[in-house]
Amino acid sequence: MTQITAAPQTVAHLAQALIACPSVTPARGMVFDCLEAALAPIGFEVIRFVAGAAPDGPVENMLAIRRGPEGSRHFAFAGHLDVVPPGEGWTSAPFAPEIRGELLYGRGAVDMKGSIAAMAVAARDIPAEAGTLSFVITGDEEGPARYGTLALIEKMREVGAIPDLCLVGEPTSVNRLGDMAKIGRRGSVNIFLDVEGVQGHVAYPHLADNPITRLVAMLTELKALMLDEGTDWFQASNLEVTDLTVGNPAHNVIPAKASARISIRFNDRHTGTSLSEKVMQIAARHGGSARALISGEAFLTPPGAFSDMVSAAIEAETGHKPELSTSGGTSDARFLKDLSPVIEFGLCNATMHKRDEAVAVPDLEVLARIYRRIALAALASN
Amino acid sequence: MTQITAAPQTVAHLAQALIACPSVTPARGMVFDCLEAALAPIGFEVIRFVAGAAPDGPVENMLAIRRGPEGSRHFAFAGHLDVVPPGEGWTSAPFAPEIRGELLYGRGAVDMKGSIAAMAVAARDIPAEAGTLSFVITGDEEGPARYGTLALIEKMREVGAIPDLCLVGEPTSVNRLGDMAKIGRRGSVNIFLDVEGVQGHVAYPHLADNPITRLVAMLTELKALMLDEGTDWFQASNLEVTDLTVGNPAHNVIPAKASARISIRFNDRHTGTSLSEKVMQIAARHGGSARALISGEAFLTPPGAFSDMVSAAIEAETGHKPELSTSGGTSDARFLKDLSPVIEFGLCNATMHKRDEAVAVPDLEVLARIYRRIALAALASN
Repeated sequence: MTQITAAPQTVAHLAQALIACPSVTPARGMVFDCLEAALAPIGFEVIRFVAGAAPDGPVENMLAIRRGPEGSRHFAFAGHLDVVPPGEGWTSAPFAPEIRGELLYGRGAVDMKGSIAAMAVAARDIPAEAGTLSFVITGDEEGPARYGTLALIEKMREVGAIPDLCLVGEPTSVNRLGDMAKIGRRGSVNIFLDVEGVQGHVAYPHLADNPITRLVAMLTELKALMLDEGTDWFQASNLEVTDLTVGNPAHNVIPAKASARISIRFNDRHTGTSLSEKVMQIAARHGGSARALISGEAFLTPPGAFSDMVSAAIEAETGHKPELSTSGGTSDARFLKDLSPVIEFGLCNATMHKRDEAVAVPDLEVLARIYRRIALAALASN
Repeated sequence: MTQITAAPQTVAHLAQALIACPSVTPARGMVFDCLEAALAPIGFEVIRFVAGAAPDGPVENMLAIRRGPEGSRHFAFAGHLDVVPPGEGWTSAPFAPEIRGELLYGRGAVDMKGSIAAMAVAARDIPAEAGTLSFVITGDEEGPARYGTLALIEKMREVGAIPDLCLVGEPTSVNRLGDMAKIGRRGSVNIFLDVEGVQGHVAYPHLADNPITRLVAMLTELKALMLDEGTDWFQASNLEVTDLTVGNPAHNVIPAKASARISIRFNDRHTGTSLSEKVMQIAARHGGSARALISGEAFLTPPGAFSDMVSAAIEAETGHKPELSTSGGTSDARFLKDLSPVIEFGLCNATMHKRDEAVAVPDLEVLARIYRRIALAALASN
């Protein structure tokens, strides 16, 4: 492992050091030591803490703050040091970073140790008097995320470090660095549907009550729901049935119970609660019940001053403006949006969660410069 | 066990002897010895044979024939000596027949060792010159039934013993002996439906193809099918979905495959094949596939001379005419109908397949007299 004991010299250097610390979710220890060693020398006060208990914890988190002059603006970089499991079939070992040609390979290269390295180098190059900078870094974004960014938000409130604007370093670029930033994300809710019936012999259906008949009717009605037609910034909300369960081995028996699970990805026309209530009403109409598990609410940072800063910074370094999108899955921005406007921007995501995850080394330096511009603009804004 | 070595004296006597031979499906050996010992002394040639191999065999069967004068009519009694497993909670041991008050308790009392005992006593009291009588007795009616009555039918063809009329001794009476006989039964087919889709992340449904969506639409269309409105003799055919299977533990994944199983109980407007083809067409229209397992075709012995004989015999002994019904599950009449007109009539079915299965002792003698009247009328008919 490359030891970092002073301010980072290059982004690739720090990225390799972070990748070399295995940190399959939930991450703890070494990978945080490595980032702390990069931030402490450039003036950050580093607060590390472990939150939660089994089964969804414990999780290590880091809040690093460099306070600017009294009354100055506060800009936060947010991200995660945990990575998804490497899986099989890598060309080089996933936690032994290796540069081949223009690419740096390793688990976390783009999601998102490369971004965090770029943030650290950007911070090094921002004068302390420009304002307050912070790093909001969790060890559990890829897992249950119950004791990660949520615990960090509590800590930020506790120490009085609420940012004015926040940038999450998720890999949002698609084909080339800077072609897409995310100004929102859909929300997500899973709903578990159960229908109880009356078991009986299939030859005497009038003596039974087939729960499958009612479940199928319920699912047909749910699937036909037109939740919305999309908005200026969001695609239409969508409902998928993701599981069906009866488990009846007897060919001549009408079963006593039938269950289904649905997943709704929804835009800011809805909340997890409003959708759950709508589904529960439909379920009840068919004599069933519904239990909702809300994974995240939709969020939107409407295009405006903050997205203009991000776009301008990207254009200055790459020559093109990003598409402002709300597509894709959830990220920790779903939590951070409660503190301040939040936008996500980072590396190209083609290899994220895959084997041979890799980042173009030149992108790392460009990203650091983009991050520096965004932070400076944010700290200069009112 | 009560030993039977001569012609049976009373129906209850023989019924107890048969019940005392444990014969959970598939039955072999002792219970057949017991019946053979009752039939041989009254002039029956007894052919016993074992058919089939694992997993649905071997199965013992018995064809007993007492040939009448050249050119005489042939009437067959049909039934089974196997019983369903006794289960728990009996007041007295299920294979230790016990009379308490008016009732004889034991597994098989009504389904259908009591009926077979009544048939044997009826045969004893029918003169040999009245015509040809046979017993078509299987050891597997309650199980897969693959090597039971089907093998007996082969044997009957082989030895030239095709009856003109056939009575199956299933317990068809409901509230009192003689209130119902069955002149037909619905057919039964199970169909296994599969829909293959394309697995994907639930946040990107346009990149996946959710097989559950298509399965639910398919099931909705199948359930809405109006197969028929019933006939003069049959209730409407009915389709039930009896199982749903996906087995997808991942909340954020659209699964690759979804399956269902349906059961159709159908009247003589359909065949197992015609229904399977109809379902396959609907399945194909939704991009799915269907595999059918036909358990039995519908049969009907339209009311006429034979049912008049049965009704008259019942009325003569009980004072009331039976309802002629086609309700309920399948029986071996589904096979025997290929040989001759077939009607089912037997004891009260309230306790069949239950614990403390029991028959009213007086019903046994009345049933023997009804069976004797039916056989005599059948042998006298043209």
